[in-house]
Amino acid sequence: MSEDEKQPPVKRYLMGLSPCKHGGQLDRVSEELNLAESDILDFSASLNPAGNPFTFEGENLDIKNLLDIAEAKLGQYPDNRYVELRSAAASFLGKGIEYDNIIPGNGSCELFRLILECIIQEGDLAIVPMPCPVEYHNSCRTFGATSQAIDLSEILHLPKRTIKHSKVIFFSNPNNPTGELTSREELIEFASKCAEHHTLLIVDETFIEMSDPAQSVADLAANNDYLIVIRSITNAFTLPGIRFSYGISSRRMAERLNSVRLSWNIGAVTETIATAIMKMEGGPYSKYLEYSRKFIREEREYIVERLSSLYGFKPLESNTNYILVDIEEHFMDSEKFVEFFAAHGILIRDCSDFFGGKKYYIRLSVRSREDFEKLISNLDDVYAESSREAAREKLEETIEHPEKNAASRGTCSYYPCHFQGQDCTFCFCPFYACENEKTGGFWIDSATGGKVWSCESCTFMHQPKIAKKVLDFLMEDGDTDENIQKAWEEVIAPLL
Amino acid sequence: MSEDEKQPPVKRYLMGLSPCKHGGQLDRVSEELNLAESDILDFSASLNPAGNPFTFEGENLDIKNLLDIAEAKLGQYPDNRYVELRSAAASFLGKGIEYDNIIPGNGSCELFRLILECIIQEGDLAIVPMPCPVEYHNSCRTFGATSQAIDLSEILHLPKRTIKHSKVIFFSNPNNPTGELTSREELIEFASKCAEHHTLLIVDETFIEMSDPAQSVADLAANNDYLIVIRSITNAFTLPGIRFSYGISSRRMAERLNSVRLSWNIGAVTETIATAIMKMEGGPYSKYLEYSRKFIREEREYIVERLSSLYGFKPLESNTNYILVDIEEHFMDSEKFVEFFAAHGILIRDCSDFFGGKKYYIRLSVRSREDFEKLISNLDDVYAESSREAAREKLEETIEHPEKNAASRGTCSYYPCHFQGQDCTFCFCPFYACENEKTGGFWIDSATGGKVWSCESCTFMHQPKIAKKVLDFLMEDGDTDENIQKAWEEVIAPLL
Repeated sequence: MSEDEKQPPVKRYLMGLSPCKHGGQLDRVSEELNLAESDILDFSASLNPAGNPFTFEGENLDIKNLLDIAEAKLGQYPDNRYVELRSAAASFLGKGIEYDNIIPGNGSCELFRLILECIIQEGDLAIVPMPCPVEYHNSCRTFGATSQAIDLSEILHLPKRTIKHSKVIFFSNPNNPTGELTSREELIEFASKCAEHHTLLIVDETFIEMSDPAQSVADLAANNDYLIVIRSITNAFTLPGIRFSYGISSRRMAERLNSVRLSWNIGAVTETIATAIMKMEGGPYSKYLEYSRKFIREEREYIVERLSSLYGFKPLESNTNYILVDIEEHFMDSEKFVEFFAAHGILIRDCSDFFGGKKYYIRLSVRSREDFEKLISNLDDVYAESSREAAREKLEETIEHPEKNAASRGTCSYYPCHFQGQDCTFCFCPFYACENEKTGGFWIDSATGGKVWSCESCTFMHQPKIAKKVLDFLMEDGDTDENIQKAWEEVIAPLL
Repeated sequence: MSEDEKQPPVKRYLMGLSPCKHGGQLDRVSEELNLAESDILDFSASLNPAGNPFTFEGENLDIKNLLDIAEAKLGQYPDNRYVELRSAAASFLGKGIEYDNIIPGNGSCELFRLILECIIQEGDLAIVPMPCPVEYHNSCRTFGATSQAIDLSEILHLPKRTIKHSKVIFFSNPNNPTGELTSREELIEFASKCAEHHTLLIVDETFIEMSDPAQSVADLAANNDYLIVIRSITNAFTLPGIRFSYGISSRRMAERLNSVRLSWNIGAVTETIATAIMKMEGGPYSKYLEYSRKFIREEREYIVERLSSLYGFKPLESNTNYILVDIEEHFMDSEKFVEFFAAHGILIRDCSDFFGGKKYYIRLSVRSREDFEKLISNLDDVYAESSREAAREKLEETIEHPEKNAASRGTCSYYPCHFQGQDCTFCFCPFYACENEKTGGFWIDSATGGKVWSCESCTFMHQPKIAKKVLDFLMEDGDTDENIQKAWEEVIAPLL
């Protein structure tokens, strides 16, 4: 066996997993653009746009004080029972939920893994909604289960046979990434069907505090061995830097999960801060969360309306702090879209991983309308840059295979984009955007309020003789940029 | 199926696991005894007795400053690549170890689970040393592997057949709980045998900074797909309140493990503090760690010598910051021993879980000789209390079945403990310790420097007539304590 053929002793079905790319892009983008992190606008992480409760005036939470308390505990092991923290989480939820219904987790993913670790046998079937976070698939895969994606709208109406054959069904409420909220009534009915067939239902309520906590089914989980609800402080309280999520389950299930759970999975700092958060007066109806929901609703409505008025953006109706946007009509796919915005210091979530690779959707987290307008003000530049890049790619292809373009004429659905009989050697103009009005090009107002260079009335590059001369210059040895410059000076400039 | 027969949908082999009882006893004991945590002496957690590096004068680490830095990061997701932290860990270790050889973990247990999650199939065989931390067994069990305990002294000489049939072999260096250090040379040889048979060797070096870091094999792991080394800051830097351990493996193995690892498993506070720790000048040979090793060695030698001079304590030779003590010759088992000391606010580690339930061993972490003397000064009280408890238990048995004691005379290996023909109704005196010298009893100096009440010269309770009268009083209805009091006044007092 050669050195390259040797593989580490890892289960085959884990070989394809790749590390999560999301979150922490701030660090990366700030390195790459040499930008201060505070100058980056992050629409990719779905955090509460009202900020964390420590900066909220109506609550008396002092982070410095909490860190002092935690500091004094750094030198001792946490009490692995986490009595105070679990009790605080139980009373945050209320409705008869007790300390021993709570499983503390170092983030929601840890809880998904823990649950699956306890119930999955290799080859089991798991049902996950389409779309859903890729972590649902990954945690199934980690334990050798097959995850079958079922359209979100169909999950609640699954035939009994399918429920019966599944070991576990994932559901997120509100859904991530669509933001669609399912009513408590519907979930109660579905949960009882799952229990009847001894199929575990996991309801991920990570975003419910920013939507409508009254639709939660956490209290049902306390009395149902086949229902586990996941909650988190990461997003709703804008605290992704500390890791605390928690599961709610029947006492018996919680006892098992807490036994298999890693000891001391929550460190002293997280324990101290999370306990204080869970003890906030009013729980899900604290002043902070009430304010947050109002702010999110208002800014979301603004953003949705604004986006709907722009070409190529179809925002989906959302009930929480992010908006899924269909951009299929754009000439850029979601990956490119996100990439170009990142280069402007604006982070957007490409949703291709939620949709099994389809690059039609982006997710924008709700932020203030001022932040949103900054995003919009970059749209024109992003379009121009992306056009330039597309032109450059096309140009390189043209230089390499000039003979191919005649053929493409017959198959191009945009032909003729300028005039009948046009030469298509240059599908994209190598001089875009020349910004020279003598060519016939001119500035137009874009829908976003900026300016875009329009080539509608310039036909130079589609005249066969000109195209041929320009191509000859471009095919010369040497730097492409210099050749473009030379072609402009020698071929186009004399015509103006 | 009745309500009680129903089980949550959990794999059968996970039903028996129970939550870890160790660590965080401080909280419990302080609640139960109503003692301030600072008044509790903890010999159970194996932390560096030199305290954490923030309180060490020779290093310039400012915890307040680090917490400020971390505070600013609470509102953003960590960068899941953990470039700075992993790079710091790599340069702490040196010897060619790079960023991409490091797997960050939220505690060592998370890393054990992660590794096994990646390689174990249900039914696989895992070899663990006897003794070893129960977590080795538990993590195997979590994934359905069979863990076979092999005597520590035999592990390095396992027959090739056994190595070949095992999927993974655990080793801890220095061993927990014996403190025995294995040389790098021996481990190099063993690791190469394991690799030859494609068996993964996990070397847990959690305590090596407090022993001899030169014996580490972390650098070998970087070039061997079948060797993973685990290090931690929890114990060596007395930071159990933050959770940071790290694995060292080949780049390929690390890439797999980092892909399966939970995203953002390290929060901002841990990331910030751990990075600072890993960057301390000198790494494993920093002033702080050099001082720690010296302090540990000197105090350990003191404690071992002192313990060896006391009856019934056999401390094993240790190379690190804890001492395993054989107390088989005591009339108390390790569980009782620990329980009685806990009632005095002194925490000791019962090692029965390390030894598959055998209650012969306790583990004492090395602390200053002053702290150790406080422990010793409680020994006499613990003995007296435990004697009283044993006497009371025996007494209750006697009251219930007075006829049984004649029979026991023939089988008692201590008979006659006072005089030939003695009555053994009361094996333990119900009046102990009466502290009345008129009985013939007297105070003697104990080996620990305290006083013990000796009954050697008192024979009252072994005289048949007296024993009979006392028994009659004790068998009356009513409170046992009051009956004892009455028997003393009516039977013994008139004789004095």
